[in-house]
Amino acid sequence: MVTDKTSPFPKSARIFVTGSRPDLQVPMREIQLAPTRRPDGTMVPNESLRVYDTSGPWGDTSFHHDVELGLPPVRLNWILERGDVEAVSGRELKPEDDGYLSWKHAETAQRATSRNRLVQFDRADRKIYKGKPGQRPTQLAYAKRGIITPEMEYIAIRENMKLQEAKEAGALPRHALGFQHQGMSFGASIPKEITPEFVRDEVARGRAIIPANINHPELEPMIIGRNFLVKINTNIGNSAVASSIEEEVEKMRWSIKWGGDTLMDLSTGKNIHQTREWILRNCPVPVGTVPIYQALEKVNGRAEDLTWEVFRDTLIEQAEQGVDYFTIHAGVRLAYIPMTARRVTGIVSRGGSILAKWCLAHHKENFLYTHWDDICDIMAAYDVSFSIGDGLRPGSIADANDEAQFAELKTQGELTTRAWERGVQVMCEGPGHVPMHMIKENMDKQLEWCHEAPFYTLGPLTTDIAPGYDHITSAIGAAMIGWYGTAMLCYVTPKEHLGLPNKNDVREGVIAYKIAAHAADLAKGHPAAQRRDNALSKARFEFRWEDQFALALDPERAQEYHDETLPQDSAKTAHFCSMCGPNFCSMRISDDIRKFADEQGLSEEAALAKGMADKAKEFKEKGGEIYQ
Amino acid sequence: MVTDKTSPFPKSARIFVTGSRPDLQVPMREIQLAPTRRPDGTMVPNESLRVYDTSGPWGDTSFHHDVELGLPPVRLNWILERGDVEAVSGRELKPEDDGYLSWKHAETAQRATSRNRLVQFDRADRKIYKGKPGQRPTQLAYAKRGIITPEMEYIAIRENMKLQEAKEAGALPRHALGFQHQGMSFGASIPKEITPEFVRDEVARGRAIIPANINHPELEPMIIGRNFLVKINTNIGNSAVASSIEEEVEKMRWSIKWGGDTLMDLSTGKNIHQTREWILRNCPVPVGTVPIYQALEKVNGRAEDLTWEVFRDTLIEQAEQGVDYFTIHAGVRLAYIPMTARRVTGIVSRGGSILAKWCLAHHKENFLYTHWDDICDIMAAYDVSFSIGDGLRPGSIADANDEAQFAELKTQGELTTRAWERGVQVMCEGPGHVPMHMIKENMDKQLEWCHEAPFYTLGPLTTDIAPGYDHITSAIGAAMIGWYGTAMLCYVTPKEHLGLPNKNDVREGVIAYKIAAHAADLAKGHPAAQRRDNALSKARFEFRWEDQFALALDPERAQEYHDETLPQDSAKTAHFCSMCGPNFCSMRISDDIRKFADEQGLSEEAALAKGMADKAKEFKEKGGEIYQ
Repeated sequence: MVTDKTSPFPKSARIFVTGSRPDLQVPMREIQLAPTRRPDGTMVPNESLRVYDTSGPWGDTSFHHDVELGLPPVRLNWILERGDVEAVSGRELKPEDDGYLSWKHAETAQRATSRNRLVQFDRADRKIYKGKPGQRPTQLAYAKRGIITPEMEYIAIRENMKLQEAKEAGALPRHALGFQHQGMSFGASIPKEITPEFVRDEVARGRAIIPANINHPELEPMIIGRNFLVKINTNIGNSAVASSIEEEVEKMRWSIKWGGDTLMDLSTGKNIHQTREWILRNCPVPVGTVPIYQALEKVNGRAEDLTWEVFRDTLIEQAEQGVDYFTIHAGVRLAYIPMTARRVTGIVSRGGSILAKWCLAHHKENFLYTHWDDICDIMAAYDVSFSIGDGLRPGSIADANDEAQFAELKTQGELTTRAWERGVQVMCEGPGHVPMHMIKENMDKQLEWCHEAPFYTLGPLTTDIAPGYDHITSAIGAAMIGWYGTAMLCYVTPKEHLGLPNKNDVREGVIAYKIAAHAADLAKGHPAAQRRDNALSKARFEFRWEDQFALALDPERAQEYHDETLPQDSAKTAHFCSMCGPNFCSMRISDDIRKFADEQGLSEEAALAKGMADKAKEFKEKGGEIYQ
Repeated sequence: MVTDKTSPFPKSARIFVTGSRPDLQVPMREIQLAPTRRPDGTMVPNESLRVYDTSGPWGDTSFHHDVELGLPPVRLNWILERGDVEAVSGRELKPEDDGYLSWKHAETAQRATSRNRLVQFDRADRKIYKGKPGQRPTQLAYAKRGIITPEMEYIAIRENMKLQEAKEAGALPRHALGFQHQGMSFGASIPKEITPEFVRDEVARGRAIIPANINHPELEPMIIGRNFLVKINTNIGNSAVASSIEEEVEKMRWSIKWGGDTLMDLSTGKNIHQTREWILRNCPVPVGTVPIYQALEKVNGRAEDLTWEVFRDTLIEQAEQGVDYFTIHAGVRLAYIPMTARRVTGIVSRGGSILAKWCLAHHKENFLYTHWDDICDIMAAYDVSFSIGDGLRPGSIADANDEAQFAELKTQGELTTRAWERGVQVMCEGPGHVPMHMIKENMDKQLEWCHEAPFYTLGPLTTDIAPGYDHITSAIGAAMIGWYGTAMLCYVTPKEHLGLPNKNDVREGVIAYKIAAHAADLAKGHPAAQRRDNALSKARFEFRWEDQFALALDPERAQEYHDETLPQDSAKTAHFCSMCGPNFCSMRISDDIRKFADEQGLSEEAALAKGMADKAKEFKEKGGEIYQ
């Protein structure tokens, strides 16, 4: 369990930018670039490029890389120095937390299989914290009081690499390359510079959240909101049929290596508690869960046996471990359930199905809805954020944007307001399966009804007909809804609808979603987004193959594909590629054109320009109708 | 070279719908579906589903499957009975057609390598046809004269499976399932029924083309236009570095198996003529080429040595073989070339680069532009369609929608009008690399400037940062521009920018583009598009796994992924899947909800409805402000 199988990215180093205090060290990945060789043989250096880094200490070659030690609690001092939390003894661990009737059963099960080891993470020196009585130690409460926390400053630096870099270089930011396109944002307004004050303001307004449980001090703070970089979530989780703790922790490291911004642990079956503990102690990104999954395990999978007491106990259990956000399906109200009966695909959300079943069995209102204020008070004490579930999301194109879906969305809005009043941060979950022309309506209604709380969507998938490729059907919808204003995109792997994702599926899913998120950042006009495109395209045009690989979202795949046709080392410095061969390459010809233009000097260009002017004159004389 | 390695799709048969004459047999793939098992054990049959089929005779298990025999000339009688073409002796084959100085060189080369066999396709009983003097045997000319050709009727049936099926069943079309969403089309107007008259009308108007060279009688007619199903093109081609004739023919069959609607042969290097001959005689979909590639080979790769005579000879050579559409970069005018000098990625189109180099070397206007009318006259004699190239398309996000690109687009519009005047069908090529917010401008300008001639775009790629995944970066842009009105999408494989696609890359690229095209059809509100989504989602919800696989764009991949976790045969009839395990499945729970609702009968639903009514009353009494 101690071997880290991931390899570092080429030409890259994990570096840190220091904030206003020495313990505020913001990580970035710095990619070194080779110089440009000009046609005359001279070399012109290319500035290194800093990119957002989610890999945490695992991406640092000097880190111990031992999962049994866990990550350093980088945020602990910030949490304690605010003086509003206290160490508590915490809830007693129970055998049912891991799905066993008794400790004896647990031991027997552990002996019986080497696969599901119940080795406990040693958290001897990690205390459990909770807000002092009457205190709500949430980033939302701080923001509303006008406090800029270290987390907020950290995020400002992290989101704004471009500016930070420029400041360090003592220069103003500039567009080194290409036309910086003005993005088209639908109501979002990204400033030219992300300041700590802007971060505070967006959090106070409820337009952004910083999921950061006080019991997850290992977290490197990040923000989810539509005026920031679009984020992606990855899901992992053991299940009754497959997977193990080792695999889950390894999947976590794997997903953050490729760029996952948050991680949901959707485990079911045995050893849920211990799996989560191992993940949290080793995870530098926010971790989310769906607590009703574990609660259901505690009542042996019988939805009708669920009670507020079992659910409440599960919330506290997970909040004490450090889960950063909870998906809670309180919007699945009794009255909405019949609206799904005539759907093509009924209720496809697991959480939604469980609650619907409970509601019908008891013919009572959803107990998560009736206990909403109690839930808020528990979550406020640990700064757990809400991810208000969309249990009635459409599971097919035919069910998109229907009555049931929008009835729940309105309730999500009501729950948002109530959570804000209790100081709890909120994002809202969204669909699902939606054809392209119906996507924008989802975003528009969510903004209006949920008061601009961040939207967090699963895709949406833009067609149902491609099982095995749903990372693609959904990346299309995800890119579009990200552009329209969705703050975080929940990834979909190629195994969606078919099976559990393996490591390669996780990689495919993460990269597809990094593409969608980045395409959305470009379209929204995020000031730093286009730098990487420009750097990569310049490297490509100049045949700096190694730089092109290093700047790619997946350097290993890019190099592997290149080497499949041209494996020789010489091909990586050659001024051609396998598509056209050495004598027939458009980029080479274009380079010749530039050389030609250079040789002819300005007179040539002027002559051509004159040609243009003559044409323009002729055009006007003919009444501007040549091309009409 | 005779083995067909592709396997037929599961539960599928190639069937034919007969048109108004017995030799008008329109192929479709019919997918058989299992019955639905109701909770009470009764079985309800599901109608089989017919889908568009591009596989040609290769998809027919009863076909000879021998590439040396070629495909039957299904269209030959239609071509001859119009009485406007005549058999000609044709241009004499030359050694330079395949890249050799002499026949002796060709023989020597053939002996030296078993890889590049120069075996000639035996076309003893296939004549070469040409329009009689003064005749322009093009679908555009027929359409303008009010003639509905068999090709047009064939296409109407092919595009309109839904209606055809309903007519055969003696019933009106109906929406068996789910809400049929009204699409949102940007100026497109797809009728509820595609009639032969509508096809004729769209072709006459120039809004659609039927690429169908009179020397490619093996073709199964198809249409490209924004009021029809969105089509996809695949590229194959040998090159100096890799590939062989065998591989190219096999790639062709492979690409049409997965759904490629047209095929471009972008071969360079040796044996271009013979590769093309083998492909054409075995290809049921339109074949396109970029003739300047072969012309360049004939002048040993020196762009400046290109002449009108060499190019003209190449056009005739390829037109006589049966190429259905030519990409011609006549819009790369001399005056536009300096506009690319300050770009991040200059000129990235091969054809564009060649012409730019020629223009600069001679300091003359592009000879394709000056000879446009001559080119039109040649192409009209064989009904070869134009695909007017976009040689100055942007090769990076930084260069999108710039002066050079739009200058060429305006010229494409001018060339379109001139081609139409000479009876030649036209589509226009488009980009490239374009961020999401700048895509629509491309479509809007193309519609306006090119007078609604069909647009045919390469992606566009919505970011530059994911080499190795450009089928995904571009499927996002392709789906969007397809929705906006692009008629055909040129696929991009995962190897784009990195290497030559292998078979798996072709499959990945085709499926990604079938997804984009279908997502666009759904969004445009194509009347038949949603049937497949509904059928698949219904199968998924009812755990008809085999049906779900058969209805998928890639049945083999879907089953392979399912079986990876649950390989047992029993799992394909089980009412659960690997994601949740047998006791915890949202679809199973939803089914329970339906059963529950059924058992409780109407009274239950009525009670719930009453609950809703009470809530609604309360809502109104509170001034409708509960959720505000």
